[in-house]
Amino acid sequence: MARFALTLEFDGGAFMGLQRQAHGPSVQQSVEEAVQKITGEDVRMHSAGRTDAGVHALAMRSHVDIAKDITPFRLMEAINALVRPAPIAVTACAVVPDDWHARFSCIGRSYIYRIVNRRAPLTLDKGHAWHLARPLDAEAMHRAAQALVGRHDFTTFRSAHCQAHDPVKTLDRLDVRREGECVLIEASARSFLHHQVRSMVGTLALVGLGQWREGQVAEALAARQRQALGLNAPPDGLYFVGARYPE
Amino acid sequence: MARFALTLEFDGGAFMGLQRQAHGPSVQQSVEEAVQKITGEDVRMHSAGRTDAGVHALAMRSHVDIAKDITPFRLMEAINALVRPAPIAVTACAVVPDDWHARFSCIGRSYIYRIVNRRAPLTLDKGHAWHLARPLDAEAMHRAAQALVGRHDFTTFRSAHCQAHDPVKTLDRLDVRREGECVLIEASARSFLHHQVRSMVGTLALVGLGQWREGQVAEALAARQRQALGLNAPPDGLYFVGARYPE
Repeated sequence: MARFALTLEFDGGAFMGLQRQAHGPSVQQSVEEAVQKITGEDVRMHSAGRTDAGVHALAMRSHVDIAKDITPFRLMEAINALVRPAPIAVTACAVVPDDWHARFSCIGRSYIYRIVNRRAPLTLDKGHAWHLARPLDAEAMHRAAQALVGRHDFTTFRSAHCQAHDPVKTLDRLDVRREGECVLIEASARSFLHHQVRSMVGTLALVGLGQWREGQVAEALAARQRQALGLNAPPDGLYFVGARYPE
Repeated sequence: MARFALTLEFDGGAFMGLQRQAHGPSVQQSVEEAVQKITGEDVRMHSAGRTDAGVHALAMRSHVDIAKDITPFRLMEAINALVRPAPIAVTACAVVPDDWHARFSCIGRSYIYRIVNRRAPLTLDKGHAWHLARPLDAEAMHRAAQALVGRHDFTTFRSAHCQAHDPVKTLDRLDVRREGECVLIEASARSFLHHQVRSMVGTLALVGLGQWREGQVAEALAARQRQALGLNAPPDGLYFVGARYPE
């Protein structure tokens, strides 16, 4: 039995989410079924993050345990061939020690959120960004975001369905910057609550639009209740971009 | 009667091409029908380039003549509202002099071609890039490309359906560079023959893969026959990125 770490890229628009769902397609189901065809084994895939329907990944980290004798390269190629036409790609694959766990060993998760900020609707970016037509003040968003960095009770920025027992998380980084007509938000933490990044982005967007004062973000955080939330940003703009592990 | 210049962005995967086609949807038909709804006038849209099915545009330049009294901003907003859900966006609109012609006044056209060069299949970039799994030598491609820059008979790099009477064109620029797992090819000329960019890219790809010697590109050009062509690259990776006009 060997443990294989997978790096996954996927277009979340085609799935009900990364993890298996009773009611629709998931990345986990596609990959597990591909591995089952390759090995004849029933495997369970574990992943660093649990992304919602419509949320994308550039480099999700996952693992599966396989008894069959197979090289990482052949496993990667075979999964990529079998998951088609689902928009999932294994971009890297390696054998890891048995005590390495894609979810439990992970000590840092990073997301990028993409807003396209222009009058015109999206064409090539449809489903891959949040479209906001009115001008955003990205610098005000960045300043307001700094109130969220650090160790806080993020109850305000947490889904009603969040299963974490503790709403206290340490946000390491929340940077907002403009690149042409795009506003990009980068978030890093050891872990996030369900909907936390989308809730923070939605609230910062209200600041960017001038509907909220910068200081209201800190007030919403201090309120520690979901009703204080400004807005939950749509999944389309959210990308899981990386997971960090101890050396 | 006023002439309105439009800047268009579109996802070519949804169309049989920019120009009207008897057998399927086109960008031209979508925009003309939107303008007809807005103005009640039968208009004809003229454009700087004629892109094939699957070819995208970030900034195509076009124009329409309209009798109705309407501001450029309102025209742009109304077209954007009416073309939905077709993946077309008017990103800029301005009134121009009557002798300004999107096609005939244009003195420069630029394209970018995107290759994603990696083992793993495409997910988020599906339909928006050419996927080549074997490693490309982008520097060899760039060197080989320089044989095509300048004034030449481009018969080798021209579609059998090309309607231009003269196969002689002046290619101002053909640059190839790698950006991570992408290989980007930028081409600029006053005008191009039908399939010229895709034909040049396909041939350069053979050099990048090591299947052609660098010098074979110059030999294929000198042959001045379509049979000397290496390969026609698929439309998915091609973007019309800009048109230049006299001040």
